[in-house]
Amino acid sequence: MFTLSALTSYEEELIGLRRSLHQLPEEGWSEFTTTARIAETLENLGFEVLLGPDIIDASACLGRKTSVVEAGLALARANHVDESLLDRMQGLTGCVGVLDTGRPGPTVALRFDIDCVPVTESTDSNHLPTREGFASTRPGLMHACGHDAHTATGLTLAHWVKDHASDLVGRYKFLFQPAEEGVRGAAAMAASGILDDVDTFLASHVAMMCKTGEVSVNPTGFLCTTKLDATFTGKPAHAGVEPNAGHNALAAACYAFTQLMGLPRHRDGMTRINVGQLTGGEGRNVIPSHAKMVLEVRGENAEINAYMAESAERILKASALAQNCEVTLEKMGEAVDLTNDPALVACLERAGAAIEGLTVRTDPMNFGGSEDATLLARRVQAHGGEAAFFVLGADRPSGHHTATFDVDEGALKQGLHFWISALQHLPKGG
Amino acid sequence: MFTLSALTSYEEELIGLRRSLHQLPEEGWSEFTTTARIAETLENLGFEVLLGPDIIDASACLGRKTSVVEAGLALARANHVDESLLDRMQGLTGCVGVLDTGRPGPTVALRFDIDCVPVTESTDSNHLPTREGFASTRPGLMHACGHDAHTATGLTLAHWVKDHASDLVGRYKFLFQPAEEGVRGAAAMAASGILDDVDTFLASHVAMMCKTGEVSVNPTGFLCTTKLDATFTGKPAHAGVEPNAGHNALAAACYAFTQLMGLPRHRDGMTRINVGQLTGGEGRNVIPSHAKMVLEVRGENAEINAYMAESAERILKASALAQNCEVTLEKMGEAVDLTNDPALVACLERAGAAIEGLTVRTDPMNFGGSEDATLLARRVQAHGGEAAFFVLGADRPSGHHTATFDVDEGALKQGLHFWISALQHLPKGG
Amino acid sequence: MFTLSALTSYEEELIGLRRSLHQLPEEGWSEFTTTARIAETLENLGFEVLLGPDIIDASACLGRKTSVVEAGLALARANHVDESLLDRMQGLTGCVGVLDTGRPGPTVALRFDIDCVPVTESTDSNHLPTREGFASTRPGLMHACGHDAHTATGLTLAHWVKDHASDLVGRYKFLFQPAEEGVRGAAAMAASGILDDVDTFLASHVAMMCKTGEVSVNPTGFLCTTKLDATFTGKPAHAGVEPNAGHNALAAACYAFTQLMGLPRHRDGMTRINVGQLTGGEGRNVIPSHAKMVLEVRGENAEINAYMAESAERILKASALAQNCEVTLEKMGEAVDLTNDPALVACLERAGAAIEGLTVRTDPMNFGGSEDATLLARRVQAHGGEAAFFVLGADRPSGHHTATFDVDEGALKQGLHFWISALQHLPKGG
Amino acid sequence: MFTLSALTSYEEELIGLRRSLHQLPEEGWSEFTTTARIAETLENLGFEVLLGPDIIDASACLGRKTSVVEAGLALARANHVDESLLDRMQGLTGCVGVLDTGRPGPTVALRFDIDCVPVTESTDSNHLPTREGFASTRPGLMHACGHDAHTATGLTLAHWVKDHASDLVGRYKFLFQPAEEGVRGAAAMAASGILDDVDTFLASHVAMMCKTGEVSVNPTGFLCTTKLDATFTGKPAHAGVEPNAGHNALAAACYAFTQLMGLPRHRDGMTRINVGQLTGGEGRNVIPSHAKMVLEVRGENAEINAYMAESAERILKASALAQNCEVTLEKMGEAVDLTNDPALVACLERAGAAIEGLTVRTDPMNFGGSEDATLLARRVQAHGGEAAFFVLGADRPSGHHTATFDVDEGALKQGLHFWISALQHLPKGG
Repeated sequence: MFTLSALTSYEEELIGLRRSLHQLPEEGWSEFTTTARIAETLENLGFEVLLGPDIIDASACLGRKTSVVEAGLALARANHVDESLLDRMQGLTGCVGVLDTGRPGPTVALRFDIDCVPVTESTDSNHLPTREGFASTRPGLMHACGHDAHTATGLTLAHWVKDHASDLVGRYKFLFQPAEEGVRGAAAMAASGILDDVDTFLASHVAMMCKTGEVSVNPTGFLCTTKLDATFTGKPAHAGVEPNAGHNALAAACYAFTQLMGLPRHRDGMTRINVGQLTGGEGRNVIPSHAKMVLEVRGENAEINAYMAESAERILKASALAQNCEVTLEKMGEAVDLTNDPALVACLERAGAAIEGLTVRTDPMNFGGSEDATLLARRVQAHGGEAAFFVLGADRPSGHHTATFDVDEGALKQGLHFWISALQHLPKGG
Repeated sequence: MFTLSALTSYEEELIGLRRSLHQLPEEGWSEFTTTARIAETLENLGFEVLLGPDIIDASACLGRKTSVVEAGLALARANHVDESLLDRMQGLTGCVGVLDTGRPGPTVALRFDIDCVPVTESTDSNHLPTREGFASTRPGLMHACGHDAHTATGLTLAHWVKDHASDLVGRYKFLFQPAEEGVRGAAAMAASGILDDVDTFLASHVAMMCKTGEVSVNPTGFLCTTKLDATFTGKPAHAGVEPNAGHNALAAACYAFTQLMGLPRHRDGMTRINVGQLTGGEGRNVIPSHAKMVLEVRGENAEINAYMAESAERILKASALAQNCEVTLEKMGEAVDLTNDPALVACLERAGAAIEGLTVRTDPMNFGGSEDATLLARRVQAHGGEAAFFVLGADRPSGHHTATFDVDEGALKQGLHFWISALQHLPKGG
Repeated sequence: MFTLSALTSYEEELIGLRRSLHQLPEEGWSEFTTTARIAETLENLGFEVLLGPDIIDASACLGRKTSVVEAGLALARANHVDESLLDRMQGLTGCVGVLDTGRPGPTVALRFDIDCVPVTESTDSNHLPTREGFASTRPGLMHACGHDAHTATGLTLAHWVKDHASDLVGRYKFLFQPAEEGVRGAAAMAASGILDDVDTFLASHVAMMCKTGEVSVNPTGFLCTTKLDATFTGKPAHAGVEPNAGHNALAAACYAFTQLMGLPRHRDGMTRINVGQLTGGEGRNVIPSHAKMVLEVRGENAEINAYMAESAERILKASALAQNCEVTLEKMGEAVDLTNDPALVACLERAGAAIEGLTVRTDPMNFGGSEDATLLARRVQAHGGEAAFFVLGADRPSGHHTATFDVDEGALKQGLHFWISALQHLPKGG
Repeated sequence: MFTLSALTSYEEELIGLRRSLHQLPEEGWSEFTTTARIAETLENLGFEVLLGPDIIDASACLGRKTSVVEAGLALARANHVDESLLDRMQGLTGCVGVLDTGRPGPTVALRFDIDCVPVTESTDSNHLPTREGFASTRPGLMHACGHDAHTATGLTLAHWVKDHASDLVGRYKFLFQPAEEGVRGAAAMAASGILDDVDTFLASHVAMMCKTGEVSVNPTGFLCTTKLDATFTGKPAHAGVEPNAGHNALAAACYAFTQLMGLPRHRDGMTRINVGQLTGGEGRNVIPSHAKMVLEVRGENAEINAYMAESAERILKASALAQNCEVTLEKMGEAVDLTNDPALVACLERAGAAIEGLTVRTDPMNFGGSEDATLLARRVQAHGGEAAFFVLGADRPSGHHTATFDVDEGALKQGLHFWISALQHLPKGG
């Protein structure tokens, strides 16, 4: 058994890293500078570092816009990121560090997400990052969901694993996943196959429904969701002179909207549908030839979500047909539900019990949002591995995705302790 | 040249026939008793009489309901109609009488329609048919569009042709067409081929936009129209227990409705769309599995009407698709536009000039409605024949299709004179 | 304590009454013959009998059609129902029998519903009522929901109460409620005030989710629902000649339909919306001036249902406005949810335990439907009384509202035992 | 009578002005530099110059965006426009020059429009303005509708009038109107009252349906139109967590869209409806709280257009109501139809006959677009004045509003001759 008392230097490392990362928030699929930093840190620790196509299947990327990728690359070059690292990334962000202890044992994957959200950070001096001088340097972007803390925790934990490798068994894969916001990045990481030899998968989120001093090891209510963009293309015509000559793409979108709103409820549980944005048309007197719809569906479980997504697709295609238009559908994000494997829940419960002052919540607490770690967990469970997701409580002055979001750094330290304890309580295999 | 002065007996015959026919109105496709009466009259005159499949292509019938046909047959039997005539009809109403003068000359087709409308005749003593005792004997049905006058005119004119055959040349085909209301019968009569040897085609309507003493020989504005019934079929489900299990046929119909209303206007002229009836659903708490829509489109010309009909069909099918339903479309009626052949207009103008007290209108007067005689005229024009439609003016106390509709019998007599004169002024061929 | 062993004659009375009532099913608000029979039975037993406005507030009747009422009155006269009874009913069906034991104690109300459903009973000889000769004598109507059993149980129980009045305390009100189907009758009975002095309220349904030998004393999942009819009135116009002159009532209905389908889901629980029927329009070429929509909303609790009903009303009114039409809304039925008072649940549990062979289910079993007894229960709870609803299990060959529905008569006998036991276990007051 | 032979210097002035104006296109309501230039030219000629509120009623401005106004002001300052002129404009563009001959006679108003369209001019060397070096200096903006020619013609004609004032009678008002594109500026100019003493009003457009050598003095088919912006405001909510809490502004817009598309055709003539743009929503998972719709209606005459505009407003408001949203409607443009006064048509016919090589078209040629000069003409006709609009033919390499639009400068010279002749042939009053 390790003693958890002598972790002060890791704690300092964690807080330092978190504050540093907080200053350079990067949007999903553009995290080149962040990825480079992670890669360099892991290589310095002696990890095998995997980048680009080895860990991200480009064909399975969701919601990845070229303009955002290019801006991220430009920023990386402005930040003097090593070109050889960029070469290895091949335009794909995210990083996996692998450490083999050399002793037989299970392969354990630990996932940390690295992207930020499009929020402008508060300049109020009551806001800790502002007061302490580590606020975002990029207007319009902010680590307002705690992924900076996740990444810092992952890197510090990697350090700890390296330091204690001789006491550990099996292999460790540290997954630093891009583009979790909008539940976009996990699908491509899963598709890369990087998890296909993994026995045990852990992921976590900070704060959410838990306060400092709590860890929820059996969260439920992960909303299954599919994010879709629908682009309608018709034919323009002068609305006064020859309205019959147009193929009205905006009409296709609006008639689709009315039918999407009318998707029936489902016997087996919660459903949701939202068209969050609609933009269409060119000029006042032109029959609109373009329209774009940004939508999402949700379901209480994967089957209900699939029912919603398939129904939405059917309606979108039929509406295009009705108006003599074309429609292209692009899946922009996806998440499923998750049931933690009971054996892992038990491990996590024991791991938490070892941390003084930590309350382990094993009751089903409602996560109430979507998480694409669920896709990674499903990939592991699909071949017989075990997976669990836990929430590390943290007091926060305001909600996730708001300008004054911040996390109690004391809770982050406690979270690091919990992660270390968790690694020690995981199944040893054989 | 015939003298038109000695027509008193024909006039009496005309009025007698009209009053008699007025008492037994029969709906489109159910005119078995009327057809039998026409057939017997023509056979008595010595015409060759064609019935059933010889003059009506059953596969081209529009808007022909089995229940209406059967009710008409039952009535015919109650009226002791000769079974051998019913055998010849084979369930198809309408009649054509052919007379060959034996002398070379063109084949002339004259068309008269025979069906009634679903209106209950007024019992007001100011209403002539009521006062004079020849009102409809069938509540809910009435010759309120003047087809009784058309049929009576056709039979009297046939009598006159028979009497004067030795002074005429070529062949005469008297077409007594069923189911003009809803523009349903002409398509099947055209499809039978009965007009394919016709050189000259004439048809007419009484009253409309002309008053007693006028004849319009160059009417325009025949509205092209297509009548459609759309029947949606889905799958019922309990609306409370499992709404997702239903395929909502009423939803398909209503979403189609909204898109049909939105059919774009046309650069080249007038368009119309109307869903005249919609009936759907079973019970309050059942997802509707059936819906029926009764609609029509119109266009200023055949091309515009086709644009409307095709667009409507596309929308109806796509809406069914969007809601996982089936839809069947049935064409219930059709009419096109018509341009009278100028040579015939000139003949009719001369024919009218020969009638004292008759004003011949050659200016383009707006007919403002649909007429399926246009389909017959097109069939004749398609192989190089000539066709014309004229309107015989008649004062009327109230509008067509109303309970107090009636036509000035004096105008009917004048109309008979005009028809006779027209036959004398038609091209003689050769 | 009573012995339950000597109930054979009551059991025979129960089955005889049930079979007799089964033969004369009457629709909601038309149960004049049934009401007369109940009234006569109760008067013969010595109950005070209340009828008409004393127990039904005519202004609060839901879904009561004049034509149905008149047909029921005509049937009653054909059945030689005593005119003086009809006079007392004043067109309002239902009956309440009151017995005062003369000893201090609570007022207990027991509710039984008396109407049938529009189903044609099976003529299959495997169907017990057919085989035994007590099937419905009225095609299209059937006691296919067990209300015949409810009424028979109520009358037999009244007999028992009368026989044992000297052993009982307080007052008993036997409510025989009309028009439960469509959740229409209870609102008017509640509004009459008949329950305003009641301390304890019991109601029950047979079969549902329980089989013979079970009684569920703590059912949940009563769906709150509001049934609405919306009648749109516009202005007709010829669809070809002057489409602009119409005010399209069917358009108002269809555009309302699309918006009703789009009513948002609710954070707090299940919602439902269904337009079960839509009928509109006159003729194919007439802008529709009438449309009628039959709809319902549901919610997991009364607040959610109110949200749905209010939203639906807002949409219906606004849609009429948009199309220059009028709309009238009529509430056709209503039910709320219900939570049994725990003290009564405990009484019922003890009552059931006293019946040999009966399993008392106290777990929350899902009722899964709507019941307007909930409105009566709410009325009692509103002034501090206690209410409970229980389900008497009964095997049945097919589902409620089907042509071969029937209930195990053995279960009805056991149900009578349970009711008697329940009366003995209710709070005695003081 | 003047001789038209010695106009060479005016022609050179015209072409020079047109080429100069062509280089600095300014959008409607931002034409501060252009207005200053016009004002200085007119003042140099000795005209009384009216600016700002004297000629533009700010409260009647349509489609005037603050951002565009401010950008125009900024450009004017960058162009060193005289601040005192800007002071007089008070933010309102456009200019009127008045010349009183001092001799009794009618007041004649001549209107020229001055704004450009949002088109980027072609850089193809085949395009004359590019080849000759006078193309637009402002990317995204271009005089692609000929208003540069109109303005140059007006200024040159003013010069001619000044030079020949001693041969003329009455008063001349030269109206240089802003913001004709989108038919936005005339309403405010009419509302200023500047036309309320005018006896004769003339306006013109170059090219359109006439080629070089033609002038159409009796154009018809001015489309009446109303341009509307509808802004819907609702309430945002998390689409997953509490969809019922949102007031969906995008839904209000889309349901309005479907009803707008369904506006009935009109008995009396052509109607049009188009929603040219729709933009709504904030984020994928947020119930949209904002939506903006850019639309227009048209009608064959002012009454039909009013029917369309009123119907659209009713639908927009009712749709907001149905979705618990607010909607604000802003009229962004308006034009009506116009019938030239016959007496003026006759004058123009004579004026044209005096120009060698010019074909005067008096047949009703279809203008086929909207023109807000019609509002000015109506204002004059309303108090008994006379008005006419004519089209000066000009060959053009491509259509109006395209990147390679240009007008035959020879035709412009001929047009100037026609204007001069027209002034000479106008009624002299008395």
